[in-house]
Amino acid sequence: MSIDPQIWTTHASRSAYSGRWVSVVIDTVTLPTGVTYEYTRLEPAGIGVGVVGMNDAGEILLEREYRHGVHEVIWQIPGGLADAGEDLQTAGLRELREETGYAPAAITEQSVRYLGVVWDNPAMGIGQSHIYLARSLEQVAGFHRDEGEFVTLHWVTPAWLKQAVRSGEIKDRVVVAAVAYLLLDGEI
Amino acid sequence: MSIDPQIWTTHASRSAYSGRWVSVVIDTVTLPTGVTYEYTRLEPAGIGVGVVGMNDAGEILLEREYRHGVHEVIWQIPGGLADAGEDLQTAGLRELREETGYAPAAITEQSVRYLGVVWDNPAMGIGQSHIYLARSLEQVAGFHRDEGEFVTLHWVTPAWLKQAVRSGEIKDRVVVAAVAYLLLDGEI
Repeated sequence: MSIDPQIWTTHASRSAYSGRWVSVVIDTVTLPTGVTYEYTRLEPAGIGVGVVGMNDAGEILLEREYRHGVHEVIWQIPGGLADAGEDLQTAGLRELREETGYAPAAITEQSVRYLGVVWDNPAMGIGQSHIYLARSLEQVAGFHRDEGEFVTLHWVTPAWLKQAVRSGEIKDRVVVAAVAYLLLDGEI
Repeated sequence: MSIDPQIWTTHASRSAYSGRWVSVVIDTVTLPTGVTYEYTRLEPAGIGVGVVGMNDAGEILLEREYRHGVHEVIWQIPGGLADAGEDLQTAGLRELREETGYAPAAITEQSVRYLGVVWDNPAMGIGQSHIYLARSLEQVAGFHRDEGEFVTLHWVTPAWLKQAVRSGEIKDRVVVAAVAYLLLDGEI
């Protein structure tokens, strides 16, 4: 491996926008050339978590939800933001239960495992989603959705999921990344 | 398919931050319940493009670059933002040439094709990257990098790439999505 590019030095940071869901920070940095540069960076509201939920027939639980960011009803896996200090796997299973009413029959090393993490856009900020696989889902207590969450549930086959990613019907980086990890692990 | 969730109605939009690289917009929307809600949305500076470049030995051209958004030197594929009105494939090949000094020997249906698009975060905004596959890369004219771009180039094997995504060494949604498309197409 040739020598890596240099890490930049940050001299100052100022808040350009601060909100509940995202903040914009302008960092004053020194580039490797010595030039001073103003870099615009996003700070997310939290760490994202998502869960690929499977039943014992090998089907996968997807959601259809209107996402105002893209002005479309889209395919997703259950997920959301971890609470401050919350264990990420616990957060993923909480979001799964809250959004869908499903949970794994038991939480063991066989039934719940980590698939990986994907960055939203490393040029813009540290927004990221940690993805888990949960097997043997079964219905548990009722739903508890946040205000602004309106979701329909759909069990799909692995073949359908692969075709939907390949055709571009699924474009969400979390679902696409989950499919990459599941393919690499021979799960689908 | 059960009935899809409803699309929300936007009544007003106001700019909360406007910059060269990103803007923050607050939309006043009506939820399906009739409740009025303030939704925070990001507007990106442009449409992202990326290129998986291969040589005739089947190796893939990756970059190492410091990305200030995540404060790390990371693995990427060549890419950037399309210029306003620029054809996306043309933009991808331009970024490839500017960042690496490589281009496909010829531009034919066999040598350059579309792999797919991935969304940064559909809850936050329409930030997206369109990914192309370009074969038979060869060195062409010299580099022309934007201010703030410092990149080293690395040819890797498909086996290395798959292992790096699986291990989490590669976390960028564009590279992970590219691997999903290449796996689904039997390219790697």
